[in-house]
Amino acid sequence: MTSTTNPDLQKERDTATFDPLLLTNRIDGGPEKTRRRQYIQNLAATDPNLVHKHISFMDRSEEYDTAVKNACYIVKRLKELNITDPTEEYWYRHIATPHEASAMALHTGMFMPTVRAQSTPEQYKHWIPDCESYKIIGTYAQTEMGHGTFLRGLETTATYSPMTEEFILNSPTVSSLKWWPGNLGKTTNHAVVMAHLTIAGKNYGMHGFVVQTRDMDDHTTMPGITLGDIGPKFGYGSNDNGFMKLDHVRVPRENMLAKFAEVKKDGTYIAKTKNTKLTYGTMVFIRAMIAGDAARGLAQCCTIAIRYSAVRRQSEIKPGDPEPQIMDFQTQQYKLFPLLATSYALLFAGSSIRDTYFRIEKDIQRGDTKELPELHCLSSGLKAFNSWAANSGMEVCRMSCGGHGYSQASGFPKIYTDVTPACTYEGENTVLMLQCARFLMKMAEAAVKGQPLAPTLSYLANTSSRTSLTPQFNLDSLVAAYQHRAARLIKAAASRFQGLMAKGMAREDAWNASSVDLVRASDAHCHQFVISTFVSVVNEKQNKDLQKVLKDLCQLYALYGISKNSGDFLEDGYMTGEQIRMVEDGVLVLLAVIRPNAVTLVDAFDFNDRILDSVLGRYDGQVYDNLLKFAQESPLNDTDVHPSYYKYLKPLAMSSKL
Amino acid sequence: MTSTTNPDLQKERDTATFDPLLLTNRIDGGPEKTRRRQYIQNLAATDPNLVHKHISFMDRSEEYDTAVKNACYIVKRLKELNITDPTEEYWYRHIATPHEASAMALHTGMFMPTVRAQSTPEQYKHWIPDCESYKIIGTYAQTEMGHGTFLRGLETTATYSPMTEEFILNSPTVSSLKWWPGNLGKTTNHAVVMAHLTIAGKNYGMHGFVVQTRDMDDHTTMPGITLGDIGPKFGYGSNDNGFMKLDHVRVPRENMLAKFAEVKKDGTYIAKTKNTKLTYGTMVFIRAMIAGDAARGLAQCCTIAIRYSAVRRQSEIKPGDPEPQIMDFQTQQYKLFPLLATSYALLFAGSSIRDTYFRIEKDIQRGDTKELPELHCLSSGLKAFNSWAANSGMEVCRMSCGGHGYSQASGFPKIYTDVTPACTYEGENTVLMLQCARFLMKMAEAAVKGQPLAPTLSYLANTSSRTSLTPQFNLDSLVAAYQHRAARLIKAAASRFQGLMAKGMAREDAWNASSVDLVRASDAHCHQFVISTFVSVVNEKQNKDLQKVLKDLCQLYALYGISKNSGDFLEDGYMTGEQIRMVEDGVLVLLAVIRPNAVTLVDAFDFNDRILDSVLGRYDGQVYDNLLKFAQESPLNDTDVHPSYYKYLKPLAMSSKL
Repeated sequence: MTSTTNPDLQKERDTATFDPLLLTNRIDGGPEKTRRRQYIQNLAATDPNLVHKHISFMDRSEEYDTAVKNACYIVKRLKELNITDPTEEYWYRHIATPHEASAMALHTGMFMPTVRAQSTPEQYKHWIPDCESYKIIGTYAQTEMGHGTFLRGLETTATYSPMTEEFILNSPTVSSLKWWPGNLGKTTNHAVVMAHLTIAGKNYGMHGFVVQTRDMDDHTTMPGITLGDIGPKFGYGSNDNGFMKLDHVRVPRENMLAKFAEVKKDGTYIAKTKNTKLTYGTMVFIRAMIAGDAARGLAQCCTIAIRYSAVRRQSEIKPGDPEPQIMDFQTQQYKLFPLLATSYALLFAGSSIRDTYFRIEKDIQRGDTKELPELHCLSSGLKAFNSWAANSGMEVCRMSCGGHGYSQASGFPKIYTDVTPACTYEGENTVLMLQCARFLMKMAEAAVKGQPLAPTLSYLANTSSRTSLTPQFNLDSLVAAYQHRAARLIKAAASRFQGLMAKGMAREDAWNASSVDLVRASDAHCHQFVISTFVSVVNEKQNKDLQKVLKDLCQLYALYGISKNSGDFLEDGYMTGEQIRMVEDGVLVLLAVIRPNAVTLVDAFDFNDRILDSVLGRYDGQVYDNLLKFAQESPLNDTDVHPSYYKYLKPLAMSSKL
Repeated sequence: MTSTTNPDLQKERDTATFDPLLLTNRIDGGPEKTRRRQYIQNLAATDPNLVHKHISFMDRSEEYDTAVKNACYIVKRLKELNITDPTEEYWYRHIATPHEASAMALHTGMFMPTVRAQSTPEQYKHWIPDCESYKIIGTYAQTEMGHGTFLRGLETTATYSPMTEEFILNSPTVSSLKWWPGNLGKTTNHAVVMAHLTIAGKNYGMHGFVVQTRDMDDHTTMPGITLGDIGPKFGYGSNDNGFMKLDHVRVPRENMLAKFAEVKKDGTYIAKTKNTKLTYGTMVFIRAMIAGDAARGLAQCCTIAIRYSAVRRQSEIKPGDPEPQIMDFQTQQYKLFPLLATSYALLFAGSSIRDTYFRIEKDIQRGDTKELPELHCLSSGLKAFNSWAANSGMEVCRMSCGGHGYSQASGFPKIYTDVTPACTYEGENTVLMLQCARFLMKMAEAAVKGQPLAPTLSYLANTSSRTSLTPQFNLDSLVAAYQHRAARLIKAAASRFQGLMAKGMAREDAWNASSVDLVRASDAHCHQFVISTFVSVVNEKQNKDLQKVLKDLCQLYALYGISKNSGDFLEDGYMTGEQIRMVEDGVLVLLAVIRPNAVTLVDAFDFNDRILDSVLGRYDGQVYDNLLKFAQESPLNDTDVHPSYYKYLKPLAMSSKL
């Protein structure tokens, strides 16, 4: 590899002060995990069956076709390779179809888990074998065109007909069309449809119904159903997010998922016990995963931007000197290194939530859910915190690469359009921040009353009114500063909320009128959690060289955050103006400290070139030859003269001659 | 129109406290200008020849083909309509091909102006008539794959051969390929190629050469030249941004643009006087235009998001109540109304710079350039300030519309990918902020020495160390606050820069090591300029109802900016923590004040539906029926069953059966 590596990039690797493999191991969770991940990812990366032309050269239909082809191939290939562990499957798929929505994503990710979790044993036996053999491919149809996360607002109805022992599913309006479900438009032949159950005029709330959407022999849309793709999006071109109109579609009584509620032949509704905390647990897990995905999206963009900044030479610092690597410009470092530190911070925070979930998963299954509200608060907040930070950061990375960042060859547009929906799906970020705030408000009240606090909020009881920050930027003093800020903002939000109620405002109106403060409080809570987690990673027993680099990153992340939110630390006199200037100087010092390790720090993320799919971010740094190669393969270059010349340009030139 | 308007949207219009037409007139520059603009835009909006399917339904080749077709049609149509004024042409094109790069953009925007400005009279006569009849269609080829704004770094050479009286143009390396010029790949048949002029081994620096790139009869690429499209980008799919390799291409001596320098037959180089300030003037103009375009991009996104927020009903504030318009959520107002205020602030600032340019244009032509450095500083900074603010704001607008914002039907993705390159082209934003800072540093030195200051920087002489801000948020006190902040940050940057030099650092290294502070100083200078301009617009003699609304917006823009940068105002004790809380409360109060006027304020931008190209942002608010229509027209719905079913899904289901 070394012999063909761009010398500017090689030089960066040669000057690193730590061994990147040690850091990769820490991210993976140990050397054995790194080896296994690399082994599995290499299987996908070297598989000729998964090679195809660049997605940005395809039209939508071709892109979709490729996604279906790959999804079907991967099903067979994983079986051949006997890879069944979900994490290992994830590793494989991630390389096999980087940045491409799987045509089976909703089937394996939502349809099957829902059917498994909400079926009676008879229903399970009826559907699951066909699901596992991919005869049935399903999706999960909840969201409607006019209705998102708010379940009560959904309009689709399932009316029970005791005469025929059927449910009649109906979308009465355009706004009630099922809209957005992944793989619904073209791929799937079944769906769990969420609808208001109505029996003899009475609404029993949301229930799930298994509906066959396409014919099992020829895949045509079933009678009474209208199906389609919702059209092109910002990204996700390979996914046929779909719409569905149900025009009095009848399904047998047995098709209502009946583990938690059943409708008898005569229309009697029988509710069974349901552990709603289990659903909570799933949400915690999904949001922790998204927090991690967002962090990886940012880390990928940092990898591209930092490698390119080592390869690209531009302008001059001193007249007559050779053009410097653009990473030597302080402004470039100031754009990228805080984002590099952020990537690590968000990755560690995401892993921490996920690990906590795994730790208490068994407790939850047993019904011990005392830690769940705290974890639900953190996972909701962190999903929003991470995805917002990644979202803005990815675009800074793209724009730090000048014009080439705007080319699809850079990889940035695909990563961005792939990750940015994380701000919206599985809970819109602002809504999640407000969910997080509900628990914070409870804890704020508990703190006032001297009641016990959840461990992650014990800082609400601290009372120091001055920072102990010194020019060494001791990590504990940084944690203390962020905790002080979070505590102050949580108390300020509680104070506004309670003050408005004290003035006679209804609780719900007071909540709405405090929501800007509440979001800010949640954001500060997440921020202190991310800092605290990073500090505990630095404090782990580990190789000293690695520890030094992690400490540099952790300090940069914390100091940069203080400088960007300095008002929060100044407003109540916790810090002085002089301390803020010390922090700002500290940021500049750390940029220079991190500079020699920057490339190695992105190498340690260990993203395969196939995931980055970026000419600018290639591991070997051979940017320019490959930019040309990318352009030459572009379909617009299939012919020298484009047909539009004969149709429009030539006639225009001729007409003016006359 | 009213009868078919969504009633939620109509209600918003009925509650406005001002006449939007008055505000539209203010933006346009008077009622007559509004009428004329609307007349011209209506010609384009109602022209059946310009109707085509949605761009997001096209593949790249079709998109390019449509752009060429439209560009050729518009040339003829504008001639028929006798529209020749550049502003009126701009209005027409903007509606005729919204968010589509013109196939003639570089020809009329760069090639012809360059040839006109740098030709001798003989050259002018030789080329311009064919340019005007579109026999010649040209572009401007400066940027190379490995080299951007830094001219000295370009590698392309033009070596004079006295034997044949020709220049030999050559791209010696891959990184020297001309890369990015608009319309170069497929459309144009000529280019001004910027290259290092070499005569008898001596480098005479950058000069422009007219090079024929394609055959005039059959449009094939000329010998010695390799041409192509650089491949798909984030957006701008209709533009064939191209690459060009020159392999010892010979052009006659007469093809060097010779107004400012000439090469005699024997190779003697003759420099002529060149008014470099004129080039400066053009840059000022272009950057002022980009500042305005960025503001309009943000205003378009606000229009879409705010109209949709009035139409969309979601969730509940009080249990059991009907779903509220999402614009009634405080968090939604907090996302959108500051951006609405920002749109107006940036629009007014952009217009102000443009008007100043027009005011002093004749002075510049006459050689009186004393105001130019100040204007160059402001226009460079404002191009960066506006495009950065628009860039992040547009994405907030998109994400404020939930899932539907991510659909191409929303219009957001197209507007974003169209406007975001403004952060990079015509001067990368950070580079421009540093250009702006050069003048600020001069003025900081002048202020210390008590020398006269440029009018826009006279605030450097002010000395108040405490704000006079009261809960009325008097506009002058807001201007004073922003000027105090800018002055402090300019002085802080100057102090670091000079301090480093005093410690013995070379000037250039000190500049680089101060560049984070310098960018921050420029940003603060631009911010105070935007505030000052907005305040003077509010203070104009005008209708009282309009004045009230503009004052609300101006205060919101200013207060929001203080709250988001509160550390800057607290750090030196200019404001107290209590005053910052007063500002934050003021923001919340203003959100409620602006709420009833929000839709009318975006109506006043007067964007034709064709420009927005957004189902969510339609003037009539008929969102849901049109979302369905968009989906149904999507090419993936041409057939019920996609071919990939037969190729992959069916075989997979069959294989598992066995």
